Amino acid sequence: MKTLVIVSHPEYWQSGGQQFFRESITTLPDVTLHHLEGLDKGYEIYEEQELLRSHDRIILQFPMYWYSCPYTLKKWLDDVLTSGLYREGLKGKELGIVVTLGVAETNFQAGASERYTLSELLRPFEAIANKCGMTYLPIFPVSQFAYMSDKKKEELLVAYQRYLTQVNQASFVNREKWLVTRLEALEGGEKYPLILDSIQQNRDYLDDLHLALKEMEE
Amino acid sequence: MKTLVIVSHPEYWQSGGQQFFRESITTLPDVTLHHLEGLDKGYEIYEEQELLRSHDRIILQFPMYWYSCPYTLKKWLDDVLTSGLYREGLKGKELGIVVTLGVAETNFQAGASERYTLSELLRPFEAIANKCGMTYLPIFPVSQFAYMSDKKKEELLVAYQRYLTQVNQASFVNREKWLVTRLEALEGGEKYPLILDSIQQNRDYLDDLHLALKEMEE
Repeated sequence: MKTLVIVSHPEYWQSGGQQFFRESITTLPDVTLHHLEGLDKGYEIYEEQELLRSHDRIILQFPMYWYSCPYTLKKWLDDVLTSGLYREGLKGKELGIVVTLGVAETNFQAGASERYTLSELLRPFEAIANKCGMTYLPIFPVSQFAYMSDKKKEELLVAYQRYLTQVNQASFVNREKWLVTRLEALEGGEKYPLILDSIQQNRDYLDDLHLALKEMEE
Repeated sequence: MKTLVIVSHPEYWQSGGQQFFRESITTLPDVTLHHLEGLDKGYEIYEEQELLRSHDRIILQFPMYWYSCPYTLKKWLDDVLTSGLYREGLKGKELGIVVTLGVAETNFQAGASERYTLSELLRPFEAIANKCGMTYLPIFPVSQFAYMSDKKKEELLVAYQRYLTQVNQASFVNREKWLVTRLEALEGGEKYPLILDSIQQNRDYLDDLHLALKEMEE
């Protein structure tokens, strides 16, 4: 599975969060990073469309500006998603949203300061996925990156990499498989035999439980 | 009450709907039209902010592009709504949305092709109103203007003018007052004494009914 990350951030190089994400991607195979404001000569629409066609999971990554994406990404969407593309070219692909927030995520609910949930505010992106015949992934919100502890950032790194590359996100078995593959791929991955063993043992135990459950049912 | 209409349409002069709206405004006092793509030299942020401050009802008027406004308007919002302005400068004003649609309005509901309502898709604008302490007006949708009959266009003209200028939109009495003022203001307004008389008679009749109802209650 190939993943394309379209990033829109007017102050990309000054953003700690965006730099963190950029570094997180470097070790991942099959992930392409495409920073819109960084395209010095602008873009050719057909090249952007080709980029979309040649990937399976499309991620739109941006800071929330007035409850939507920055205008640069909106311009790109208006330009690139021509009827020729959206009618056929994106069918069956996935659309994910990585949105960075200046305030705590808990503010996005009825009764709190922002009043609406992220799912509600980003509905236009869900509608785009719908129109293009794409599968809309759960939103990946990142709030107040600058205030995160190192521990939190480590967790974020793993969650972000999974969001970008894990097949069938919702399944626990897939999450486990993904972790094993990533551990094995790490430089010096041989250092982690204990972790790998432990995951494998847990897996065997879970498989046994599944089998036992199935026999009881029969 | 002063109304500011911020229009964003990349093909403004080719749009029949936008030209219709432009002409509808010419006879209205206290309505300022501000077409973003028509500002040849761009804009100064503080001048735009001054414009907002000096009006009471702000209308954002645009064609729906990918379930939101064109990028030009998004850029303007990102630029102009600085924290200095939104924290104080817009409090108590009204925010209205005139959105033109390429498909029938009935498509915007659960189970129909666009799946979500206009209220849901334009939630980010409601959230902006909320953040700025403004009153959000009911959305004014205009679908498939090009296919409208002359009769429909006449109705649209009156409804549009009301949306822009009528104080306290929800009240029937105000709607009536607005109509009388507009009729009297028309060039050659003296031609409509019969209509004005008829409205006045209806009003007297309704007042009598109200009085009767009140007496019955007591």
